[in-house]
Amino acid sequence: MNGNEFGRLFRVTTYGESHGDAMGVTVSGCPAGLELVEEDIQGDLDRRKPGQSMITTSRGEPDEVKIHSGVQDGYTTGTPIGMTIQNKDARSGKYEPFITAPRPSHGDFTYSAKFGTRNWGGGGRSSARETVNWVAAGAIAKKLLATQDIQVKAHVNQIGDVVSPDVSFEEMLEHAEENEVRCAHPETAAEMRDLINKYQEEGDSIGGSVYFEAQGVPRGLGAPRFDSFSARLGQAMMAVPAASAFEFGLGREARTYTGFERNEDWMFDENGDPTPVGNDHGGIQGGITTGQPIYGEVTLHAPTSIPKTQTTVDWETGEEKQEKVIGRHDPVLPPRGVPVVEAMLALTILDYMLLSGRMNPDRLDGKVGEYDTDYHPRNPANIE
Amino acid sequence: MNGNEFGRLFRVTTYGESHGDAMGVTVSGCPAGLELVEEDIQGDLDRRKPGQSMITTSRGEPDEVKIHSGVQDGYTTGTPIGMTIQNKDARSGKYEPFITAPRPSHGDFTYSAKFGTRNWGGGGRSSARETVNWVAAGAIAKKLLATQDIQVKAHVNQIGDVVSPDVSFEEMLEHAEENEVRCAHPETAAEMRDLINKYQEEGDSIGGSVYFEAQGVPRGLGAPRFDSFSARLGQAMMAVPAASAFEFGLGREARTYTGFERNEDWMFDENGDPTPVGNDHGGIQGGITTGQPIYGEVTLHAPTSIPKTQTTVDWETGEEKQEKVIGRHDPVLPPRGVPVVEAMLALTILDYMLLSGRMNPDRLDGKVGEYDTDYHPRNPANIE
Amino acid sequence: MNGNEFGRLFRVTTYGESHGDAMGVTVSGCPAGLELVEEDIQGDLDRRKPGQSMITTSRGEPDEVKIHSGVQDGYTTGTPIGMTIQNKDARSGKYEPFITAPRPSHGDFTYSAKFGTRNWGGGGRSSARETVNWVAAGAIAKKLLATQDIQVKAHVNQIGDVVSPDVSFEEMLEHAEENEVRCAHPETAAEMRDLINKYQEEGDSIGGSVYFEAQGVPRGLGAPRFDSFSARLGQAMMAVPAASAFEFGLGREARTYTGFERNEDWMFDENGDPTPVGNDHGGIQGGITTGQPIYGEVTLHAPTSIPKTQTTVDWETGEEKQEKVIGRHDPVLPPRGVPVVEAMLALTILDYMLLSGRMNPDRLDGKVGEYDTDYHPRNPANIE
Amino acid sequence: MNGNEFGRLFRVTTYGESHGDAMGVTVSGCPAGLELVEEDIQGDLDRRKPGQSMITTSRGEPDEVKIHSGVQDGYTTGTPIGMTIQNKDARSGKYEPFITAPRPSHGDFTYSAKFGTRNWGGGGRSSARETVNWVAAGAIAKKLLATQDIQVKAHVNQIGDVVSPDVSFEEMLEHAEENEVRCAHPETAAEMRDLINKYQEEGDSIGGSVYFEAQGVPRGLGAPRFDSFSARLGQAMMAVPAASAFEFGLGREARTYTGFERNEDWMFDENGDPTPVGNDHGGIQGGITTGQPIYGEVTLHAPTSIPKTQTTVDWETGEEKQEKVIGRHDPVLPPRGVPVVEAMLALTILDYMLLSGRMNPDRLDGKVGEYDTDYHPRNPANIE
Repeated sequence: MNGNEFGRLFRVTTYGESHGDAMGVTVSGCPAGLELVEEDIQGDLDRRKPGQSMITTSRGEPDEVKIHSGVQDGYTTGTPIGMTIQNKDARSGKYEPFITAPRPSHGDFTYSAKFGTRNWGGGGRSSARETVNWVAAGAIAKKLLATQDIQVKAHVNQIGDVVSPDVSFEEMLEHAEENEVRCAHPETAAEMRDLINKYQEEGDSIGGSVYFEAQGVPRGLGAPRFDSFSARLGQAMMAVPAASAFEFGLGREARTYTGFERNEDWMFDENGDPTPVGNDHGGIQGGITTGQPIYGEVTLHAPTSIPKTQTTVDWETGEEKQEKVIGRHDPVLPPRGVPVVEAMLALTILDYMLLSGRMNPDRLDGKVGEYDTDYHPRNPANIE
Repeated sequence: MNGNEFGRLFRVTTYGESHGDAMGVTVSGCPAGLELVEEDIQGDLDRRKPGQSMITTSRGEPDEVKIHSGVQDGYTTGTPIGMTIQNKDARSGKYEPFITAPRPSHGDFTYSAKFGTRNWGGGGRSSARETVNWVAAGAIAKKLLATQDIQVKAHVNQIGDVVSPDVSFEEMLEHAEENEVRCAHPETAAEMRDLINKYQEEGDSIGGSVYFEAQGVPRGLGAPRFDSFSARLGQAMMAVPAASAFEFGLGREARTYTGFERNEDWMFDENGDPTPVGNDHGGIQGGITTGQPIYGEVTLHAPTSIPKTQTTVDWETGEEKQEKVIGRHDPVLPPRGVPVVEAMLALTILDYMLLSGRMNPDRLDGKVGEYDTDYHPRNPANIE
Repeated sequence: MNGNEFGRLFRVTTYGESHGDAMGVTVSGCPAGLELVEEDIQGDLDRRKPGQSMITTSRGEPDEVKIHSGVQDGYTTGTPIGMTIQNKDARSGKYEPFITAPRPSHGDFTYSAKFGTRNWGGGGRSSARETVNWVAAGAIAKKLLATQDIQVKAHVNQIGDVVSPDVSFEEMLEHAEENEVRCAHPETAAEMRDLINKYQEEGDSIGGSVYFEAQGVPRGLGAPRFDSFSARLGQAMMAVPAASAFEFGLGREARTYTGFERNEDWMFDENGDPTPVGNDHGGIQGGITTGQPIYGEVTLHAPTSIPKTQTTVDWETGEEKQEKVIGRHDPVLPPRGVPVVEAMLALTILDYMLLSGRMNPDRLDGKVGEYDTDYHPRNPANIE
Repeated sequence: MNGNEFGRLFRVTTYGESHGDAMGVTVSGCPAGLELVEEDIQGDLDRRKPGQSMITTSRGEPDEVKIHSGVQDGYTTGTPIGMTIQNKDARSGKYEPFITAPRPSHGDFTYSAKFGTRNWGGGGRSSARETVNWVAAGAIAKKLLATQDIQVKAHVNQIGDVVSPDVSFEEMLEHAEENEVRCAHPETAAEMRDLINKYQEEGDSIGGSVYFEAQGVPRGLGAPRFDSFSARLGQAMMAVPAASAFEFGLGREARTYTGFERNEDWMFDENGDPTPVGNDHGGIQGGITTGQPIYGEVTLHAPTSIPKTQTTVDWETGEEKQEKVIGRHDPVLPPRGVPVVEAMLALTILDYMLLSGRMNPDRLDGKVGEYDTDYHPRNPANIE
């Protein structure tokens, strides 16, 4: 168990180190009949990629994805989709001081303690570079969800003590990508940007958070108990590098609500189905979706790689030493974390859609060229 | 996938409905040689059981556990441990108004939407009664961890707006069980108690939170990425009924820390091993333990079963109606949630101990009666 | 990993030792809406139970199953079904000579080598008594398959050198249960019975085999590669106690067939779907079903518990000794193996049905009493 | 679930189609500290590769493996090992007649029935080309097992009606690779070769079998019941393309053995440990290893791709038609199946070694360059 696998029916398996040859991801369990080309994936990779703005690391990675299998004539075949993304701009030299002297608050020491070794260039396997794999898989998940009228979106709702007012889903869609901070509230985005600049200039970094929301998720998704939607979403989001808190619905605030304040009456919706009158519950009750939007927040602590002198100890020499973590690093994580959070949300929802047999295959295009046949799955869950 | 399975090598499988015949739990992967009798489990069950104080439901359940397998002459044999706990005091009548008219903010509707039916007595499978199984399994996990000098403890650190000052692990051990609120800070406990009483008298309920901590966890436990210690712990804790937020280390507060503020230098500990100078990181870096205590918090929203008139809709009649949720319910969840949170923490840690082959079998007593042999596992991970 | 779990979406988790308190099985992932009472399960348990004839062990076990959860008003609710079967007639005394001196060709030594201990009464966890759990779970699987017009059946096709002629599925249904050997060819059954008697009188036992077949399995079930239908069925059948060979289709005989002899042309069936002209392929091509019957054989070696003097060594005393395995044992396994093989076949097929979303929920009765609702799963795969 | 994942702690995830861009395999859970270069893997790939002799397909694939991750300075790091093998010599044109008219006894129709489409070039995902991934992963497993003094070997023991006499493990090591049939009995190999030639000249193909054996496997490996060593090995071997029978120990022959004939007394071995006096049990009792060699056989039916005119039906036109399967195909499978069977055997054993914590890490070289540290895993199971 390398922690490189996610999902139950829609499965993601990854490999790759920050300064290794390539990153790779295998997506297993993707239904057949989805129109898919590399460009469908590239868009999200570009949102995550380094060097996209002044507030991201300047490492120059084109992050071009190559699909090796599972797609034919532009449509998925239901078999595993293998993808690789080459690493092009690795410069390991700056990491040499830290081979046996761990960087403060990184995974250097813990990886060494677990494995007895580690790939030390650029953080190796512990680097957030790994999330390029997640975003590639997530882009496929999003495209599948879109065929079912399910949308996911995230934006940055806090940087340091600058907090965004609440924004609607439509505002997120419209404004989140307009600025390099990826905050859907333009004035707040500007404030955040100033704050980030300040810390960046000081050689420091700052924490923040990402708000996420999913619209169109049908009621009845999820499972009881250990596999509740919130538990699995919690795992997904806490896996995001630097995540230190996960909340959904009222989140931490629920501590001060009484039952009567938080409880939501039932009414009939426009289709005559019961629906709660509010959404303090974040779209999930008893671990299963109500049909209301799913929303929550992930806190991402400040980047630990900062060009300030800090103290470490060298386990080879037995001596303390002072080092700066030079390199090319982000002053803040949420802006590039937005596509990562969206990917994890999409992967979680899609997995439940498949587990529940709720995918409607007629919404996949599926006209797989001339050799299209009657032998379509009647239900996309066919495609295990 | 019924969501009734937890863990990878130390596995827990559960069944049971609130008003069904019995609750049951199978523990698979328990190492051989642990001294184990029913009394070892009963203690934690008693801490969780209903009717233990004025601030818990008055349902009268002795919650006596019966072990059916996996133990011989007082020691575990390495094979599955089957346990049942009979339900004795089920009174389903009060739930009849809600068969087709869901209680506000319960799982009634979502279970029906998912399964097309549900066991409606006492909430059926969605009831927190299920956690009796978790606590039974957790008690075994705790006993195993104790042989490895690992301890877990939790206490109630917030009820409504009453917040406990920070307490030490020793204070938790000493004071948490002294009062019915299970807050280790006695003065705060009294305040919490008053607040709970107030809401209880109003026919309302109130939210709160549980702080947890583990001491003695060796460094190097956990895994990269999707199976990071924090991700798996996040799943475990978000599965606790009514959990709406999970935090570890600085948690949500990390948003306002700069990298330099949060980063922790390295020093050598008394054994000459590198260790961080602080523990804002909550014992986990890069998804793997540092050897520092693991700690965090879970927010539990207010109980949704309250004897106040609320509105629901009946999907059979198509009519709105007003109902009170009569029954026997808790006015607050954290006090009984303490053993549940401890159980999930213990189960998560133990699973990583087994996955990492870190269990020291010599610390299990293992003198399994007269027929003791040389054929002991050399490593408890032998016992898959 | 105790090896006590089977299946991916329809999951079986077991516990229990031969001379322990009770056997137990949890069935997770059973769709809601199946009419189910204990009598539905009891029939198969009776076919497996000891003492049913002169050629089975005389141990007196009623093997009455008790359902604790997952069923309400006679219908499954989609949540886990917990069941126990009490052990009533355990007499461990006869096993004392073997506590540290393993019985020839039993699991006594290997369990001790793995776990460092074992429950030695009646073979403990290694006893075929465990299969009572499998048959209980299998009975539910069969009932679900029957709603989809899928039937499984097995019979004894060889005992020692007595081989049954081929029989049709209808002959199996009609004749297999008419005789205590469970061979569907009555004349052969009589021959087999004589042979078994002969060995039984000599204090010996004899090997044999079980032929199995499934009718009505839709085409397109299974999966590529590691999870091919034949691979998963192979695991299922090789798990049957005493199994030493698994074959499907031509089985071992395929060694001497040329490609041209074995290849089967395609024709259209009565519905205009392609179907192979023969079934040497055993219903599976490329790991996926063709729609033809699935069939094969499992070889079960002779029971190892025989009342003959044999040599063993005592690892406590370091001495060799001569012992007879007294007790109550079967002279041959296939007759009681028939319901076990059927159970494993049913569990395997059902799991693929759920994985493929092929269950038709309209065929489950699902009128779950008065509180029946519109909130039925649209697809039984809903019931994860 | 695409059937592209194998193993529990040592995990293999694959992708790729016969005529796709590349084959890929991710190995997760490989312990750190194993010396590993591409050449270690290439040897087995060369034994499996097409075009190696006159009795294999003439497709020209160099099958060169590229390692992308998980290895640093020549040693494994404990993180996932990603590998790709490019497809260079795909010629799909000859498969066009079969796009909607399935080849006899291939997976064409069943893949289409399951997925509603398929990659039809060269059999796509159903092609045995996939096993190049298995052999790559297996080569790593073998190297790890060698550090623990465990060896696996296979040879061809039957082609058509030509059966090899029994050979010793040493004979397999010495002779199996001396001839293109990979039969360790040279005279029989010559006979087999003649038989294959005969069928090849006739445009036909022929079945056969592979015998496998593992030496040095410690006692106590495996698990009870559903995960018994024989069950998991059964799954592994039945996944081999064209497998129609799996046997271990006496296999099918056990049908005619009495209990007394088959039972094996116990004696003390040279170390004073109990050991059976024979090995009709094939190294496994009660699903767990005895320490005796593990051995068995896999039957592989004749290749289904033969240049003879056969009948199929076109589901687009609704017409029957006659076609020859032209292309580049093997006249017999066992010779190239030998490294595949060895790979599956090695993967199965290694997985149990990790599950049991039996790997001795001191036997891995593990001097990982200059930055070698004290922070070695104390137990290779550390490396989850």
